[in-house]
Amino acid sequence: MGNLQSVNARTGEAFGSAMAASTPGQIDAAVQASHAASALWGASSGAQRADLLQALASALDAAREPLVACADTETALGLARLNGELDRTTYQLRRFADLAQRGVPFERMDDPAVAGAPPVGHPAMVLQRMPLGPVAMFAASNFPFAFSVLGGDTASALAAGCPVVVKAHPGHPVLSQRVFAIVQEVLHTQNLPAGVVTMVQGAGPEVGVELIRHPLIAAGAFTGSTRGGLALQAEANARPRPIPFYGELGAINPVVALAPALRAQGAELASMLAGSITQGCGQFCTNPGLVVLVDGPEADAFTAHLVQALSQQVPHPMLTAGMRKAFDAGVQAMLDAGAAPLLRSEGLAPAPGPHLLQVSARHFLERHVLREEVFGPSSLLVRCASMADVHAVLAAVGGSLTVTIWGATDDTEEHRAVVRTAAQIAGRLLFAGVPTGVAVTAAQQHGGPWPASTAPMTTSVGDAALQRFLRPVCLQDAPDWLLARAGVPC
Amino acid sequence: MGNLQSVNARTGEAFGSAMAASTPGQIDAAVQASHAASALWGASSGAQRADLLQALASALDAAREPLVACADTETALGLARLNGELDRTTYQLRRFADLAQRGVPFERMDDPAVAGAPPVGHPAMVLQRMPLGPVAMFAASNFPFAFSVLGGDTASALAAGCPVVVKAHPGHPVLSQRVFAIVQEVLHTQNLPAGVVTMVQGAGPEVGVELIRHPLIAAGAFTGSTRGGLALQAEANARPRPIPFYGELGAINPVVALAPALRAQGAELASMLAGSITQGCGQFCTNPGLVVLVDGPEADAFTAHLVQALSQQVPHPMLTAGMRKAFDAGVQAMLDAGAAPLLRSEGLAPAPGPHLLQVSARHFLERHVLREEVFGPSSLLVRCASMADVHAVLAAVGGSLTVTIWGATDDTEEHRAVVRTAAQIAGRLLFAGVPTGVAVTAAQQHGGPWPASTAPMTTSVGDAALQRFLRPVCLQDAPDWLLARAGVPC
Repeated sequence: MGNLQSVNARTGEAFGSAMAASTPGQIDAAVQASHAASALWGASSGAQRADLLQALASALDAAREPLVACADTETALGLARLNGELDRTTYQLRRFADLAQRGVPFERMDDPAVAGAPPVGHPAMVLQRMPLGPVAMFAASNFPFAFSVLGGDTASALAAGCPVVVKAHPGHPVLSQRVFAIVQEVLHTQNLPAGVVTMVQGAGPEVGVELIRHPLIAAGAFTGSTRGGLALQAEANARPRPIPFYGELGAINPVVALAPALRAQGAELASMLAGSITQGCGQFCTNPGLVVLVDGPEADAFTAHLVQALSQQVPHPMLTAGMRKAFDAGVQAMLDAGAAPLLRSEGLAPAPGPHLLQVSARHFLERHVLREEVFGPSSLLVRCASMADVHAVLAAVGGSLTVTIWGATDDTEEHRAVVRTAAQIAGRLLFAGVPTGVAVTAAQQHGGPWPASTAPMTTSVGDAALQRFLRPVCLQDAPDWLLARAGVPC
Repeated sequence: MGNLQSVNARTGEAFGSAMAASTPGQIDAAVQASHAASALWGASSGAQRADLLQALASALDAAREPLVACADTETALGLARLNGELDRTTYQLRRFADLAQRGVPFERMDDPAVAGAPPVGHPAMVLQRMPLGPVAMFAASNFPFAFSVLGGDTASALAAGCPVVVKAHPGHPVLSQRVFAIVQEVLHTQNLPAGVVTMVQGAGPEVGVELIRHPLIAAGAFTGSTRGGLALQAEANARPRPIPFYGELGAINPVVALAPALRAQGAELASMLAGSITQGCGQFCTNPGLVVLVDGPEADAFTAHLVQALSQQVPHPMLTAGMRKAFDAGVQAMLDAGAAPLLRSEGLAPAPGPHLLQVSARHFLERHVLREEVFGPSSLLVRCASMADVHAVLAAVGGSLTVTIWGATDDTEEHRAVVRTAAQIAGRLLFAGVPTGVAVTAAQQHGGPWPASTAPMTTSVGDAALQRFLRPVCLQDAPDWLLARAGVPC
């Protein structure tokens, strides 16, 4: 299995010494420990779960400076962004602590007996949600805090009462180990079994495959590439007993910029969009990879503004050399497919420059490769001859985390139709602003039809993320003692 | 594609003339009509949906006598059962009408803007649920009304705002056509497009495969065999754009009968269980196929009572000759695997007699074939030497619609442990009564870990069945006009 070597993302030099990949025996031990902790953690109270999540947040806060410095070395994301991401991560942990404290994972529906014959009569029933058991959590490269060892998946699984086996991301292995050491210390301090959170690591796909195949793993949570997610989902489905697999994969996040919005504030929108395309060097799942314009003078002016605004952006280096290579290849594939370059900027190696390409709607519909996500600071303008083209382009995209619609301010048939089409393909529709920046809140929906998510009815960000790890169980004619325990037979 | 010939289930003679299977062109036309109706039906009001569902229920009631007679000829389920099933079917339609009328499909979560920077600050967000679009609904053999053309899947999909393409079950093709004719008349009377409910048919798997592969199908709902469901799920996942597939497959529904219950009322429990094993000739997804006993005098006495009670049962003919053949083969496979026959009853052809087999827990754990569902009037007793054996047996079952536990009346560690183990493998835990008879109610959970369901977080019976066909969509900074339309851009 692939051993690990952390790399300074700016210099390409080795950072620390090589680390061994987890062996099959170590992976089994991690899952066995998780399984052994499962009954205890699954029967923990909301207060206990809240205590752990709060303590984890505090421990991250206490180690902020060295953790952020380490993350910056391994990812080149910059101190400002990484401090903000750590804020988000501790906020997430505390938010899920609050949900657990308020009893959300234990909410139940009482459905008292109704006398008489069926279909009207029925016995006493109570609907509970039960934790699934050990969750295999696959960390993402692009959020070394918020979607990694103590990220949203871990926080929501722990709040739901599930132990977590983290598959660390090889893009930030030193940070992962440091955060994991913090976790172990907190578990120890709280007298909790070390199996509540365990970790495995490895550079290649082998460790992740071994993990998702383990018979005691009850669910998988993944944020990453379509290819990687697809492979793991296939493994989850091919098990003798398939398990839920929550994969948040690729999205190109169309921005439909209608003429009224461009007339009113085209220059500001172009500037805002340029910032969103290049933010974090474009390494966001909600990066706006597609800009849909209807031909006209407003579109021309907006395009000129966007080229101008983008050319002033100076992205930082990408997370890894491999991702830089993939970015260059993705841009080249679009050029090869006939996309016209409006802006190609060399950048300062290892940082790529921003790119803007353009195609006609007809061309976009013909060449499938143009619908594929290019992870990095680039976007593809699609020029439409009519609103019919806009609908066809969105339908061809098929699935996305977001669709942004600027200018649908009035209740017209045209606007209703574009909202309808957008709602068919995305989990979140924005009517102002840009899709980057995903609020951790009650109404967030981070997920959409394939390929945005393998489970489009669920969200991986926001309060409902917790529900992914709870399975409904109906208790029929349950004895009083079990109901008094809120259905959890600890 | 396989043409259809209805058969009198009691005599084996042809019932009516042969029917042609739907051609690929007809399947495409059915889905295209469904797609064309999708925007209109998806934007219908709760009152409109309720009107349709109520009218469908009334139309079934009005045609009750000929429909039940036709169903009885094709299924041999008997008039009492079929009248009860029709009651359940109309109850279900009216219950979903009520849910639509009360606005359940349109419920939304308002999450007002919070000022300030992230992670605390966020824009105005509203979480809605949007209908998925055309649903391919695969009818079941064993519920010619309740899980067929106008069964629970159709009722819940229509209430959610999704048009339905029914794949009729070849076990009751004449009834399916008659019910479908009623649907068409009601749609016509209500001035609704015929595409709101369309139907295709065929004897082999080809028609269903063609249907689930159709690019305009948005979800699949299936009740039937593990083999059939697995094949269709694989098709749903192998599409260029995978779609949700809700398959309710096989379950063996363990009944754990603990000594205190057997001491107190062993004879009555045996009699009740014998009725459940043979009810509907054992052709229920919640049929108790496994009885788990701990060695002791209570178990011996209960076994004798059960053999006695079962031997007095006279099952009616099975639904089809193929199912009868599969039942005989399933029993034989268990005998071949070393199960001891406690009761083998010839029955009166084409009706099989009740069967009771027995194995030790150790034997059960060794032979995988003993965990497989035998669809029909038989059950397998598993004799356990200890409670540890009970846990091992339940864990080996892995997934089931139900687990029944008799005698867990007190709060003891032993009882807590068995509930914990049972909750890991089932969607419904019963502490009294028998698993057959599935209430259509708010807290019902009809689904469980694989192989009980391909989507164990969902239910195919009860109010929450509707949620399978609604996808969460977050509206961020939505314009007032869209919010005023409750988020549905009709």
